[in-house]
Amino acid sequence: MASTPLLSDLGTEVVIPVCAIIGIVFALVQWFLVSRVKLSPEKHALNSSNKNGFAESLIEEEEGLSDQNVVVKCAEIQNAISEGATSFLFTEYQYVGIFMVAFAVLIFLFLGSVNGFSTQSEICTYDQSRLCKPALGTAIFTTVSFLLGAVTSLVSGFLGMKIATYANARTTLEARKGVGKAFITAFRSGAVMGFLLAANGLLVLYIAINLFKLYYGDDWQGLFEAITGYGLGGSSMALFGRVGGGIYTKAADVGADLVGKVERNIPEDDPRNPAVIADNVGDNVGDIAGMGSDLFGSYAESTCAALVVASISSFGINHDFTSMCYPLLVSSVGIIVCLITTLFATDFFEIKAVKDIEPALKRQLIISTVLMTAGVAVVSWIGLPSSFTIFDFGSQKVVKNWQLGICVCVGLWAGLIIGFVTEYYTSNAYSPVQDVADSCRTGAATNVIFGLALGYKSVIIPIFAIAIGIYVSFSFAAMYGVAMAALGMLSSIATGLAIDAYGPISDNAGGIAEMAGMSHRIRERTDALDAAGNTTAAIGKFYGILYRAKSEEWQLQLEIGPHGPEIGFAIGSAALVSLALFGAFVSRAGISSVNVLSPKVFIGLIVGAMLPYWFSAMTMKSVGSAALKMVEEVRRQFNTIPGLMEGTTKPDYATCVKISTDASIKEMIPPGALVMLTPLVVGTLFGVETLSGVLAGALVSGVQIAISASNTGGAWDNAKKYIEAGASEHARALGPKGSDPHKAAVIGDTIGDPLKDTSGPSLNILIKLMAVESLVFAPFFATHGGLLFKL
Amino acid sequence: MASTPLLSDLGTEVVIPVCAIIGIVFALVQWFLVSRVKLSPEKHALNSSNKNGFAESLIEEEEGLSDQNVVVKCAEIQNAISEGATSFLFTEYQYVGIFMVAFAVLIFLFLGSVNGFSTQSEICTYDQSRLCKPALGTAIFTTVSFLLGAVTSLVSGFLGMKIATYANARTTLEARKGVGKAFITAFRSGAVMGFLLAANGLLVLYIAINLFKLYYGDDWQGLFEAITGYGLGGSSMALFGRVGGGIYTKAADVGADLVGKVERNIPEDDPRNPAVIADNVGDNVGDIAGMGSDLFGSYAESTCAALVVASISSFGINHDFTSMCYPLLVSSVGIIVCLITTLFATDFFEIKAVKDIEPALKRQLIISTVLMTAGVAVVSWIGLPSSFTIFDFGSQKVVKNWQLGICVCVGLWAGLIIGFVTEYYTSNAYSPVQDVADSCRTGAATNVIFGLALGYKSVIIPIFAIAIGIYVSFSFAAMYGVAMAALGMLSSIATGLAIDAYGPISDNAGGIAEMAGMSHRIRERTDALDAAGNTTAAIGKFYGILYRAKSEEWQLQLEIGPHGPEIGFAIGSAALVSLALFGAFVSRAGISSVNVLSPKVFIGLIVGAMLPYWFSAMTMKSVGSAALKMVEEVRRQFNTIPGLMEGTTKPDYATCVKISTDASIKEMIPPGALVMLTPLVVGTLFGVETLSGVLAGALVSGVQIAISASNTGGAWDNAKKYIEAGASEHARALGPKGSDPHKAAVIGDTIGDPLKDTSGPSLNILIKLMAVESLVFAPFFATHGGLLFKL
Repeated sequence: MASTPLLSDLGTEVVIPVCAIIGIVFALVQWFLVSRVKLSPEKHALNSSNKNGFAESLIEEEEGLSDQNVVVKCAEIQNAISEGATSFLFTEYQYVGIFMVAFAVLIFLFLGSVNGFSTQSEICTYDQSRLCKPALGTAIFTTVSFLLGAVTSLVSGFLGMKIATYANARTTLEARKGVGKAFITAFRSGAVMGFLLAANGLLVLYIAINLFKLYYGDDWQGLFEAITGYGLGGSSMALFGRVGGGIYTKAADVGADLVGKVERNIPEDDPRNPAVIADNVGDNVGDIAGMGSDLFGSYAESTCAALVVASISSFGINHDFTSMCYPLLVSSVGIIVCLITTLFATDFFEIKAVKDIEPALKRQLIISTVLMTAGVAVVSWIGLPSSFTIFDFGSQKVVKNWQLGICVCVGLWAGLIIGFVTEYYTSNAYSPVQDVADSCRTGAATNVIFGLALGYKSVIIPIFAIAIGIYVSFSFAAMYGVAMAALGMLSSIATGLAIDAYGPISDNAGGIAEMAGMSHRIRERTDALDAAGNTTAAIGKFYGILYRAKSEEWQLQLEIGPHGPEIGFAIGSAALVSLALFGAFVSRAGISSVNVLSPKVFIGLIVGAMLPYWFSAMTMKSVGSAALKMVEEVRRQFNTIPGLMEGTTKPDYATCVKISTDASIKEMIPPGALVMLTPLVVGTLFGVETLSGVLAGALVSGVQIAISASNTGGAWDNAKKYIEAGASEHARALGPKGSDPHKAAVIGDTIGDPLKDTSGPSLNILIKLMAVESLVFAPFFATHGGLLFKL
Repeated sequence: MASTPLLSDLGTEVVIPVCAIIGIVFALVQWFLVSRVKLSPEKHALNSSNKNGFAESLIEEEEGLSDQNVVVKCAEIQNAISEGATSFLFTEYQYVGIFMVAFAVLIFLFLGSVNGFSTQSEICTYDQSRLCKPALGTAIFTTVSFLLGAVTSLVSGFLGMKIATYANARTTLEARKGVGKAFITAFRSGAVMGFLLAANGLLVLYIAINLFKLYYGDDWQGLFEAITGYGLGGSSMALFGRVGGGIYTKAADVGADLVGKVERNIPEDDPRNPAVIADNVGDNVGDIAGMGSDLFGSYAESTCAALVVASISSFGINHDFTSMCYPLLVSSVGIIVCLITTLFATDFFEIKAVKDIEPALKRQLIISTVLMTAGVAVVSWIGLPSSFTIFDFGSQKVVKNWQLGICVCVGLWAGLIIGFVTEYYTSNAYSPVQDVADSCRTGAATNVIFGLALGYKSVIIPIFAIAIGIYVSFSFAAMYGVAMAALGMLSSIATGLAIDAYGPISDNAGGIAEMAGMSHRIRERTDALDAAGNTTAAIGKFYGILYRAKSEEWQLQLEIGPHGPEIGFAIGSAALVSLALFGAFVSRAGISSVNVLSPKVFIGLIVGAMLPYWFSAMTMKSVGSAALKMVEEVRRQFNTIPGLMEGTTKPDYATCVKISTDASIKEMIPPGALVMLTPLVVGTLFGVETLSGVLAGALVSGVQIAISASNTGGAWDNAKKYIEAGASEHARALGPKGSDPHKAAVIGDTIGDPLKDTSGPSLNILIKLMAVESLVFAPFFATHGGLLFKL
């Protein structure tokens, strides 16, 4: 039973930081490569690089790779977006900073009070024969790791946003040289973010564990219990990031579209629209920063859940450091695997045409999954003893190393399946979205009915995949297996984030092109060509690549990210992570069974299942109200600023940015409070049994709404694009832009915005966050909880 | 412990049938009163009755109470609707008849095989010291009671439809005499249905129990186990009724509206619309017959659940027949209470103006709840021993009679709260619907976003009410308490059904008025008056009452039914019933704990929570597809039949009726199969633990979607009517009909149709039906289930 793994403790101490550092270095290299695209006109960089061999990729050159005005304009717009985003994030961080400090105090008080702030060592929870560090120690170190997780999350989101805005205009400029160049710039930028986040998260956690060890010594249980604060910190910042960012971006988007596209009939991202900068800022703070924080949170939480369970298994009892760090080793290998995978996209293969992009992204997912499977096999072989026991709700369970390896792989492959199913239901290359587009023939109402039905249907396979994943990993290794399955799904997080960030970066690149006026000239040209039935000849035209991309097929592909496979991963992993955290919470709270047939549990279950609805009602209403305010402001500007529609006067972008900022800050508080307070209130008043019910109910209900809301929104978005692109006979029959079916499709798209970018993805966080918070406060609830029933 | 109740067994044997017969007689009296409104012109009945003292209620008489053309036309239309509905129901019944027989065979084979079709007596499940009837006996009697329940359900639905179509035209004609007359006719007709169903259900069950007793003797457990088939039969027919009828009515409604109102700009229920008869048929087969079957199913199931639990409590052991019949006694008292309540609406108070209607209906709910509380107190006092023990998952629990009485009352009052909350969120007298209407200013997209948010929000209070109801009743008397709480919520079923049927009856009455051309003349007149700012003067005008009602305020009030309090009852009671059935299933399957922390249970939980989505996807897509077909046919008729728009040629109503019929028959099979097969497949392959998880998951997730879908749909409907009615400054600013906000509101209303009338209400049945089916098959699953895990 006490066999040791092949990898020595010293080896572990070396492998983890080395992998993390490799990841960071790789991210910096990618950044360097992106930065070679110059945004300053004085060096004539583009022009000269064009002469130095980049010209092969150009089918035809016309006016102005040397047109420095465009470069200047792009740089200006980029600055405006970057400033708006930075200013929003700083405002947001002020508020969440206050929350962070207040909540840190709360953690300290709650956990410290478990044993009346005593400084005496206590009998351990799981091993009654030993002495562990006092509850006060756990209180202090949990508070510290909470702050650490929160700050890491904020830094991650901020870095992601900085990289994205840095990359936007560069992608725009590269697009002048061809699809391949633009793709690589956007993808590299995404990779910068992916690797920085993954490696940073790992490194911080590794350092924290080693520092905490100085105090805790071999009290592994206490150490890893304190480390869960890291997950809570990361996740609570993610909540505010997702909700605040989500409200920001959708208020601006919906507001800009309703007046601009619908009332004034001007294109998306037209510089005359006062909300256009707010809209583009929103893409960066919502989709990029919010999503970065979210996935970082998932990653931190699943690692923490696995570590806590590992610490109370035979690893902890035998002080087997390498085995306890198995979750970190898996993540370390993940970074290396993702590094190799990225090279396939940027170096081994070349994107030559628009139609290559989607397969290239899909290939990334498959390559990383296959390589990771091999990586997991190796780690399981060298990082684990051949057999060990884990804690299984009071009893002990014997697990073989290959079984744990299978748990990781089950999560990994379930993630791939969920990713592909998500794509099937949201990509307009397949029949579900085409059917939704077709239903636009009879108006917006049928479009919405079909879209909702599609979302509901898209839940089926992912839930089966999750259920099978849970069953297999649960059967093999109880909650430790589930936690490792979650981590398996997230092990390719760097690649996943790269793909995911790629979407909004490209989208914004298109927006910048529109705003810089790059596309206007081209549009006239392509429109003329269109009339002559010669659209394809325009593809290679200068600037035309981007405009065509923006308006037609390319963007469809570019935007695969935001509603593509990644959102599936995020939700799937959230479900597994929550279950693992739930299991850890139940273990820590000393419950050995959560019986649905007990009234305390059942009322928790049904109320928990209601919480995602309550939360969604809040966030959707918030987006609606904020969008109404935005609409009024945009209308006001169009009506009162003379020359705005003619393009002779600049609109007042700043007021729109302020409206979005204020609305999102104000509106993120109630849903945030709902999520953060529910576990505290339920645990304190009703006790751990009811809280278990709430967690289980929120999990099984929330995951369904999250999947269906995201996919419904994604499908509407792509149905609209399908009609706009007119790439098939069927699509052309529904179009063109401005036709009745297209108008119906735009309505669907607008409804989908808050569903897919605010409510849906925030629900991931809701279920994870409530679980991790319950785990952190478990010692308190177990001691002092259930006041109402005690009275 | 073995104290006996005050009411003797003989008394019980008398009280129950007497109450049932009183209910039936009362229904017949109401029918007689309705039938006094003559539909045959030759007798000049209206004219003469007018002369005989009915004229007081007329403010002003103009052309034609003597206009026999109108009467003839109304009779014609009524015949067309009645024929369409009868023909649809017969077609539907042919298909469900085949299913019924097939499923009856299945029940017999599954249950008979439990002990290899042995005819030997067996050791009882709960009391190992006694011998019970063989499994084969249970198989036979369960099959018989299944068929009995199914036939009773079909008869109930059919009768309801007949009564409703009988009442439609009569309400139209009475409307010429005043609001009060129309209200009483419609309400009496609703009461006919309510009392017939409630009394009939009780009587059949009572007779069945007494007949079964001849075989079972004092084997109460066997007897009531066999009786559960009655609930299964009733509920499975309700499923097909709700789904088939729901698809029928919404395909016709959506199809008629999309072409008629949106494309051709003709009013609702215009006789030129080819789908108009199908639409009106739909109201009768969907809203009336479907809803009748649904509530009958709930009633049968909650009674069965309570009886099963009672049979294994001390009542059964002591052969205390009166106490075992406590659920039936509560229902008997319910009939008497509802009878008195009805008199308040029809005789004690008089409706004089439109604004009196809504308070009158609300008063019905309050009066019945208050009276029933007293009734429950009496029944609990005389029908129960002062103290007794009930079966509580393996252990025994002592319960006092007043505690059980409180369980019933908790359900009763929770139902009232849910009813009022539902009304608050769906009536346009309150701010939630007004906010949704207001959001139409910025178009259909914001309308949909606000409507969805409203639906999500409306879940909160009902879930808390249900949770408290469950906690209290569960704590007092375990699953028996929950079953009795469900029955308490349904104890005023006769009044509930009367209110609920009243809505579609009035709606159709308005439709008939429109089709009979009664309103066209009036519309011109009211429009003219409107322009002169003198609308109110038109209210009392001949015919005008109905037209005004149809177009404005009255209908808003009339239609409180379909999305009013009743739907809240239906869902709330479904949740309690399912839980009670679930508890009975778990007891029968011999499980003493359903532990969420077991992988078998958890995967069931998450998959179960997914089922309502799968089911909704099917039903919504079905409505969408059927509506598309209807749209094409209606368009075809408008395009190819000359003189149709001018009103000189009659449209081909029959083809539209056929399209709806065919679509609903074809489309009801997949969702029906999903619900009926899931428990069988899961129980047989995965066993009772996973099935428990599935039931719990479907329950906690389904109840949320059911409430939110119904309320969202109801709110959109009433937001549209709010704008149309223009009763306030705010509403007029959004209108009139045809304005952009109104168009946006119409889109919302159309989306809401399948949500509130197909998916939402069908979900009640999904959760109940899966639970009752599991209970019926529990002996089989307990013996032979879980094949996959056994391998």
